Amino acid sequence: MRHWEANMADNGVNVAALIEAREALTKAPEAAQFKWRAACEWKDGTHSHSTVEGFYGLGQEQHHKKTFAFDADHPEIFAAADQGATPVEYVLVGLASCLTAGIAAVAQNRNIQLRSVKATVEGDMDIQGILGIDEDVRNGFGGIKVTYNIDADAKREDIEALVAQSQKRSAVFDVVTNPTNVTVLVNPKNG
Amino acid sequence: MRHWEANMADNGVNVAALIEAREALTKAPEAAQFKWRAACEWKDGTHSHSTVEGFYGLGQEQHHKKTFAFDADHPEIFAAADQGATPVEYVLVGLASCLTAGIAAVAQNRNIQLRSVKATVEGDMDIQGILGIDEDVRNGFGGIKVTYNIDADAKREDIEALVAQSQKRSAVFDVVTNPTNVTVLVNPKNG
Repeated sequence: MRHWEANMADNGVNVAALIEAREALTKAPEAAQFKWRAACEWKDGTHSHSTVEGFYGLGQEQHHKKTFAFDADHPEIFAAADQGATPVEYVLVGLASCLTAGIAAVAQNRNIQLRSVKATVEGDMDIQGILGIDEDVRNGFGGIKVTYNIDADAKREDIEALVAQSQKRSAVFDVVTNPTNVTVLVNPKNG
Repeated sequence: MRHWEANMADNGVNVAALIEAREALTKAPEAAQFKWRAACEWKDGTHSHSTVEGFYGLGQEQHHKKTFAFDADHPEIFAAADQGATPVEYVLVGLASCLTAGIAAVAQNRNIQLRSVKATVEGDMDIQGILGIDEDVRNGFGGIKVTYNIDADAKREDIEALVAQSQKRSAVFDVVTNPTNVTVLVNPKNG
């Protein structure tokens, strides 16, 4: 349900609810502790099937409306079956969708009507890293370039400011640009 | 087509082709320069639709067998429509699928038969960061825990070594645990 004023931009983001959430969580920071999850099952070769359904937040277990399922694989030029997007492409989808959601939310908050927002994301990778050819080459991206084409009812500098603010508050932008500690545990069944 | 020896493990990974690729790329490092891509289009609110299809590598444009499409959104508790997985969940899918593909490839190379590989990934996030409540709280994950349950024809330490080697060569593990430079360009249509 949307209840914006007639002279307000409507990007479909319920900013009032987000501001309310911010106020509520300022008073109850323990409710702001979230856990996001995915489950992954190996199928064959480099093909795996992942699902996303439950997460934790606001002090209790939460659920998506449905289970989201994703196949990942390596492409045929890596002698694989190409049964899904390559894992690194999932990261690019996460980055683009996080920044795009942020742009819509910030635009709503600033009363800027968006007409269209399109992004292309490109990550350079020297695969001498993952192939173990050169120890000085990293496994991940050398760098990532995101290009936005935005049609909005605003001046150029205001559109640029939207994107800058989205970067500043983007979870995935932070994950990609800053280090995160990852702990990997193994439970062998047959050891 | 699989042509493994009768006494060889078969995890469906063509390791011979990967070793051949490593040899070829050692002689022609320019062919190892890849570009991975995603395109993202804003739909409404925090909902976006992304596609993955083309990439660049081995000195030319490459294509997946088909276009992979992904919807991303925020969940209902964020007053959004939950039309897809949350962007940060895409990162977890990328991480789990990258490590899992690596485990299968390393196991093949070490002649270890995998029976099942399942992972759960959980990323902690204090959303006081993305909500701008506390500037000292980061936007991304505080930390990520990956738990593998692996049933394989190998000793416990050999199974653990598989996972350790996969981490060492994983592109997404590197992206998450180390910083990557991201450049964001904006082309406003109406400025």
